[in-house]
Amino acid sequence: MSLIVMKFGGSSVGDAERMKRVAGRIAEVSAQGHKCVVVVSAMGDTTDDLIDLSKQICTITPPAREMDMLLTTGEQVSVALLSMAIQSLGQKAVSFTGWQAGMYTEAVHGKARITDIQPERVLKALDAGNVVIVAGFQGMTEEGEITTLGRGGSDTTAVALAAAIQADVCEIFTDVDGVYSTDPRVVKVARKLNEISYDEMLELANLGAAVLHPRAVEYAKNYNVPLVVRSSFNHNPGTNVKEEAAMEQGIVVRGIAYDKNVARISILGVEEKPGQLAKVFTALAKEQIDVDIIVQSGTRDGQADFSFTVSLGDKEKALQVIEGIRGAVGFREVTSEENLVKVSIVGAGMVSTPGVAAKMFEVISDLGISINMVSTSEIKTSCVIDNNRLNEVVQALHTAYGLDTDKAAFVGGPSERR
Amino acid sequence: MSLIVMKFGGSSVGDAERMKRVAGRIAEVSAQGHKCVVVVSAMGDTTDDLIDLSKQICTITPPAREMDMLLTTGEQVSVALLSMAIQSLGQKAVSFTGWQAGMYTEAVHGKARITDIQPERVLKALDAGNVVIVAGFQGMTEEGEITTLGRGGSDTTAVALAAAIQADVCEIFTDVDGVYSTDPRVVKVARKLNEISYDEMLELANLGAAVLHPRAVEYAKNYNVPLVVRSSFNHNPGTNVKEEAAMEQGIVVRGIAYDKNVARISILGVEEKPGQLAKVFTALAKEQIDVDIIVQSGTRDGQADFSFTVSLGDKEKALQVIEGIRGAVGFREVTSEENLVKVSIVGAGMVSTPGVAAKMFEVISDLGISINMVSTSEIKTSCVIDNNRLNEVVQALHTAYGLDTDKAAFVGGPSERR
Repeated sequence: MSLIVMKFGGSSVGDAERMKRVAGRIAEVSAQGHKCVVVVSAMGDTTDDLIDLSKQICTITPPAREMDMLLTTGEQVSVALLSMAIQSLGQKAVSFTGWQAGMYTEAVHGKARITDIQPERVLKALDAGNVVIVAGFQGMTEEGEITTLGRGGSDTTAVALAAAIQADVCEIFTDVDGVYSTDPRVVKVARKLNEISYDEMLELANLGAAVLHPRAVEYAKNYNVPLVVRSSFNHNPGTNVKEEAAMEQGIVVRGIAYDKNVARISILGVEEKPGQLAKVFTALAKEQIDVDIIVQSGTRDGQADFSFTVSLGDKEKALQVIEGIRGAVGFREVTSEENLVKVSIVGAGMVSTPGVAAKMFEVISDLGISINMVSTSEIKTSCVIDNNRLNEVVQALHTAYGLDTDKAAFVGGPSERR
Repeated sequence: MSLIVMKFGGSSVGDAERMKRVAGRIAEVSAQGHKCVVVVSAMGDTTDDLIDLSKQICTITPPAREMDMLLTTGEQVSVALLSMAIQSLGQKAVSFTGWQAGMYTEAVHGKARITDIQPERVLKALDAGNVVIVAGFQGMTEEGEITTLGRGGSDTTAVALAAAIQADVCEIFTDVDGVYSTDPRVVKVARKLNEISYDEMLELANLGAAVLHPRAVEYAKNYNVPLVVRSSFNHNPGTNVKEEAAMEQGIVVRGIAYDKNVARISILGVEEKPGQLAKVFTALAKEQIDVDIIVQSGTRDGQADFSFTVSLGDKEKALQVIEGIRGAVGFREVTSEENLVKVSIVGAGMVSTPGVAAKMFEVISDLGISINMVSTSEIKTSCVIDNNRLNEVVQALHTAYGLDTDKAAFVGGPSERR
């Protein structure tokens, strides 16, 4: 008998029929004698519908606190209905909101981090023979304010809860069969991975592979929670995410990711004095803006240029922040750019294999495409390029690193990120 | 500067435009320097839509706990959006769920009673200059379970909160101009009442006048909360509900109510021994079934017949309860009847004016309609009749008691009960 955390995303419970199918699957696992905790997202388009509604009503920037109040209803609807569906199959079940399940977060709205989990109520309900259904994506501050964990938050809820109750495994159910070597919608012959390490998954997740949220992977790595990414539509084995994953013979790059959610901001003519970079990035961090790649070019006449990337949604805010510190920093101008994409190759074997990054640059330049920015780590190399020839680049890299399989991969709908 | 509780029902916030109009009205009151606490119901058909969804998924009797979990999301959406709408007008606002506002209830799902209110958080937010928006209809048990107060619950939330924070007035905004002498959709010349006493309102509310929920009126009476029922669509003065209300010259009956939500259950051939009635009604009370009129007919051969009314929704459950105590009570058969209506005349002056009830019986019998059951109190008389000639009866009574005005009353849509 195992203790299993199962997470179902919004498209897995997109309508009444899918909800019932998910309930059937849970009841099946429960009937095998396993204890089940289920984390579920809002149904299908619920979140987007609520956002649309708020746009009709709110003529200012939506207050983040009230957005959290609004959006958390989506998961609450899901847990109540899923509990009913499971009970309809004769299995005891009980649903909890985030705060009821003891998910405490920091006092930030829109993308709070989990600070503590007090799972007593969940454990008690499990001991009473219930399937326990917990609303993903949400928590509560110590002051009793409702918060959300941001996009991908349900994955994080599932993994964090799995760690807190020391579950044997955390299964992330999604609409694809597992983690692929790249997006099967772009490369038909993408291969499904049987195993991947936390670190590799973290890079892939961070780099826009939508199947699993990076924060969730980080959590899983920190608490050593065994993860499985698998399909909610079939019983195929999925991809195991764990500490050490075996590499196939002759393959160094595990996968290729891309991220279209990229904006580049350049600050030109920055007066050169110590602490300038720190000022900029401290100001951005204060506003909860995540900066990804940072590139500083050479100095000229005591002035430097530098560029960095942020997510598209943060672009305007980032530009405002920078305008706000113009006096403190001193620079000539700020420019920004969209229509970019970040393409990355990821593999734990890269560090011990020379020339892997060089091959990437070669493949891209052979296509006549220029590389705008580069960033590397021990297990990945990323290039920011114009987004108009993305598919070509991904396909060429997939072939170059020996990742193509014989047969076309299963191609599902867009993956769930919440 | 007053402290005002304003309650808006579901049709007042039925869509984005109405929500914005309500926000405008609140901002207006707030700009006059008043402190405002706003209680709001779920938008328009939200509750019904959620119930429909649950029916698609739940193949058993929906578990009441999960229904509460499901339905309370409706009000949570409303408070978040209303807060955004008010903030869009430049007024500070903050929304609270029932549990955040400190609404504690007994541990019953579907129709819990408020046991305690801890309004510290509401008061603190008011002091900080916010309009405070509270989700109606919902509360929390001491164990942290989410509960609902049942139909009409938002009225109760408003009045109970007004009592707890010692508000100067509790304004119930609805889609009609106030409390009418009867349903203006049935009697075109119904008159809007300027004043009505708690007791009269309680009878009218209990008797199916949908404008204000009886539990809310009871609460208002017990804590002496001044109530105003008024339109959310205009600035007309509405109806004041208070301890002592002046009667117009020559008018004894304040209003005429009817209730179609009536089922009659008859238990025939009950063995006559002490405590039989107690057994039946204790068993019904245990299942939270409210019994209204009870009539016991004479005894024959040591056996008695008796009848009582329950709401239509409770009929099946009541029949089950009675079958369950067949052994303990001993009776010949149980029958039930629908298609009934209870018509009532209400007025504080009735007790000191002879012949008021007699006139009612006369008016009904003059129409050739038989009366099935009768019930009286100091300030009301009710008759249960077949429902097919309801409108005629109400009109005739309205005229007979001198309630007709010269001009047709404003006729709005169906009133809100939640």
